Amino acid sequence: MSSSMSETRTGHAGLCLHTVTTRPWPIETAIEKYAAAGIGGITIWRDAVEDRDTAVLRRQIQDAGLEVVSLCRGGFFASNELQERNAALEDNRRVIELASDLGAPLVVLVCGADPRQDLADSREQIHDALVTLAPYAAERGVKLGIEPLHPMYADTRSAINTLRDARVLAERVGETNVGVVVDVYHLWWDPELEAELKKLKSEQLFGYHICDWRVPTEHMLTDRGIMGEGCIPLAKISTWVRETGFSGFDEVEIFSTRLWSQDQDTVLKRITEAWNG
Amino acid sequence: MSSSMSETRTGHAGLCLHTVTTRPWPIETAIEKYAAAGIGGITIWRDAVEDRDTAVLRRQIQDAGLEVVSLCRGGFFASNELQERNAALEDNRRVIELASDLGAPLVVLVCGADPRQDLADSREQIHDALVTLAPYAAERGVKLGIEPLHPMYADTRSAINTLRDARVLAERVGETNVGVVVDVYHLWWDPELEAELKKLKSEQLFGYHICDWRVPTEHMLTDRGIMGEGCIPLAKISTWVRETGFSGFDEVEIFSTRLWSQDQDTVLKRITEAWNG
Repeated sequence: MSSSMSETRTGHAGLCLHTVTTRPWPIETAIEKYAAAGIGGITIWRDAVEDRDTAVLRRQIQDAGLEVVSLCRGGFFASNELQERNAALEDNRRVIELASDLGAPLVVLVCGADPRQDLADSREQIHDALVTLAPYAAERGVKLGIEPLHPMYADTRSAINTLRDARVLAERVGETNVGVVVDVYHLWWDPELEAELKKLKSEQLFGYHICDWRVPTEHMLTDRGIMGEGCIPLAKISTWVRETGFSGFDEVEIFSTRLWSQDQDTVLKRITEAWNG
Repeated sequence: MSSSMSETRTGHAGLCLHTVTTRPWPIETAIEKYAAAGIGGITIWRDAVEDRDTAVLRRQIQDAGLEVVSLCRGGFFASNELQERNAALEDNRRVIELASDLGAPLVVLVCGADPRQDLADSREQIHDALVTLAPYAAERGVKLGIEPLHPMYADTRSAINTLRDARVLAERVGETNVGVVVDVYHLWWDPELEAELKKLKSEQLFGYHICDWRVPTEHMLTDRGIMGEGCIPLAKISTWVRETGFSGFDEVEIFSTRLWSQDQDTVLKRITEAWNG
């Protein structure tokens, strides 16, 4: 897998872990362990930094030699109630500020969906929220990455479910700091994925998340696998991603009650080995 | 919902139930109960007719005034082992014969996927199987309906996950007895559903399955809802389906451990009331 990573990185330096992947560890432990494993990047989940001094944390990450790749996650813009939509905008301004404070260049967006209304309405609300927030984020040096989610999350999590929809939405918003994030878990099944990646400019692609789809998948949210444990054709998709000119990290984002219940040092070792494989 | 059904049918006559929807009932009970409720059609699941005399069953259905709408299900054509692909072809010939024996004009196909190989390979194998089987089915007066399945089933159940893929596949096969089946559960999320339905000719659309997507969905296979229990915009989709010129039944296909554990007379009543609503 590492053959396609940026040539300036060596070992596991092109690898980034999402803190949620090793959720049992406090972020301070994660920073220490990731760095010790030679991993180059960290994507911070918001819940991992609750009650933390962000300046202290930022320094700790820097001292450990890790790059903050992104902050997960903003979004959830869709609601059939105006008050909720406004609250989401406010919440996202806080997320953007947090990203800025942590030195994260990117906020990953799970755009939201409201089962009380049509997906088409949710999509318009998401568009409007992005138009509102993009300048706010730009002023703080933060990019906004639209992550299309698997269609099985179209009820409550995201009305943006294919790469095409994410790309077209980003283009409609038309701000250079609004782009897309590709996660193989959400998009591997799409027969148009290759063609859509070919349409993407590298400057539209802000992030690349990897993991695997287990067979059978026993829980819709928390049964993701380590790369190689499932049926996602990761090498092929990674090649398509790199052919866009994308030179960012391979970010490992795994939600798994199975893995969270295991020894996290062992899990980390399995992830770095799977990535080298 | 009933406003858009064929004008020649009255009451619940435009409604069809899949035997799996009332799985606790033996098919003989289902026939009796559906007919008593004024339901016009029955779609037979293969497991419901195991060890039955098909001639006796066919007569019973006819005497009850029910129309056999389709037989569920054939397919599972994809495999990375030739022997398994050949076995699937043989099995599907048996399904086609069973449909013919039961007077079912249509076999619904869950086309299959093999997590050991690329989805693109599975798609080619599905195409090849359809080319092989279409004449066999045509000789017996049976149509083959490609049912695109939700992308969450792309690992083992079907490599055909959007209406576009199903339509394009049917057109590639190019036989008049090969078409598509639309199920709202699988396709409701697709932003291109309306546009794709507009591209469909009525003679390409062989069946229409309805139910609802519950929020939250607690099991990937067996937590479907009765129409109105979830977030699928059924009235809108039904309008699009009817605008193709489709004049077939609204087929209720619900897999639900929750509903299967309840009194089936009550479930049937809820379904017919939901359909009228």
